Amino acid sequence: MRRTSFDTMRCSIAQALDVVGDPWTLLVVREAFFGTTRFDDFQRNLSIPRATLSSRLSSLVEHGVLDRSDDPDDRRRHTYTITTKGRALDSVMVALLQWGDAWSDITEPPVTLLDLDSDQPIEPIYVDARSGTPLGELRIGRRINPTTDG
Amino acid sequence: MRRTSFDTMRCSIAQALDVVGDPWTLLVVREAFFGTTRFDDFQRNLSIPRATLSSRLSSLVEHGVLDRSDDPDDRRRHTYTITTKGRALDSVMVALLQWGDAWSDITEPPVTLLDLDSDQPIEPIYVDARSGTPLGELRIGRRINPTTDG
Repeated sequence: MRRTSFDTMRCSIAQALDVVGDPWTLLVVREAFFGTTRFDDFQRNLSIPRATLSSRLSSLVEHGVLDRSDDPDDRRRHTYTITTKGRALDSVMVALLQWGDAWSDITEPPVTLLDLDSDQPIEPIYVDARSGTPLGELRIGRRINPTTDG
Repeated sequence: MRRTSFDTMRCSIAQALDVVGDPWTLLVVREAFFGTTRFDDFQRNLSIPRATLSSRLSSLVEHGVLDRSDDPDDRRRHTYTITTKGRALDSVMVALLQWGDAWSDITEPPVTLLDLDSDQPIEPIYVDARSGTPLGELRIGRRINPTTDG
């Protein structure tokens, strides 16, 4: 059941979705982001079918989002740790979390994000780095850039 | 080919992914965000199979991300416009775009985001609203909040 590949589409959103555009994939990344490393822990925390988990972990390793190593406690097993490329998905997860908090049927946010150094809640907001204006206050358009190929 | 529903999972990321965790779905939202309204325009801009587009548009209308109206130019057709709930996915799309720009094999960003009022490029960055610190400079943890049900 291989879905359409988006990696030939000249769009960075499509490229990103080709790696993480599957619900289970982003939930596996979420777990890795917060420190889960072992297959059985991913499986239990997500209640994900084992075959599905196995295929998603392999795909994330192949795409450089997770690193796979031998488990020092059991050489027949592996551990999975998030890479710099994977950690850079923090914005995607924060954006999804905030949208789910605001627009799903959940009445109270199930999770509060914390700054681990101060142990205080954080309130993520997207701003334009040049002006400090929140993105929600801007009218956003796009310019298609010319290709530089050939 | 109905995938697992995540809407019973007590996680706002899972709830969000239940609505938009499909690659085509977010690309349809991208087009609607930038002003595409007609079936044939979605179809041409995305090169998406018509049956896939039809099912994704219906799902997005059902979830309140798009509004469906009669096309004033042709009453046999519909137009699709993005709702406030859909427009709030701007952060998710920006986060995916930036991750794709930074980490895919694309060498130059295919698209530049613009502030339509000044016609200047914008540089979106996630910060903690309380301190102004970029999220990438924080160690982020999570606190699971108690349920208030019952």
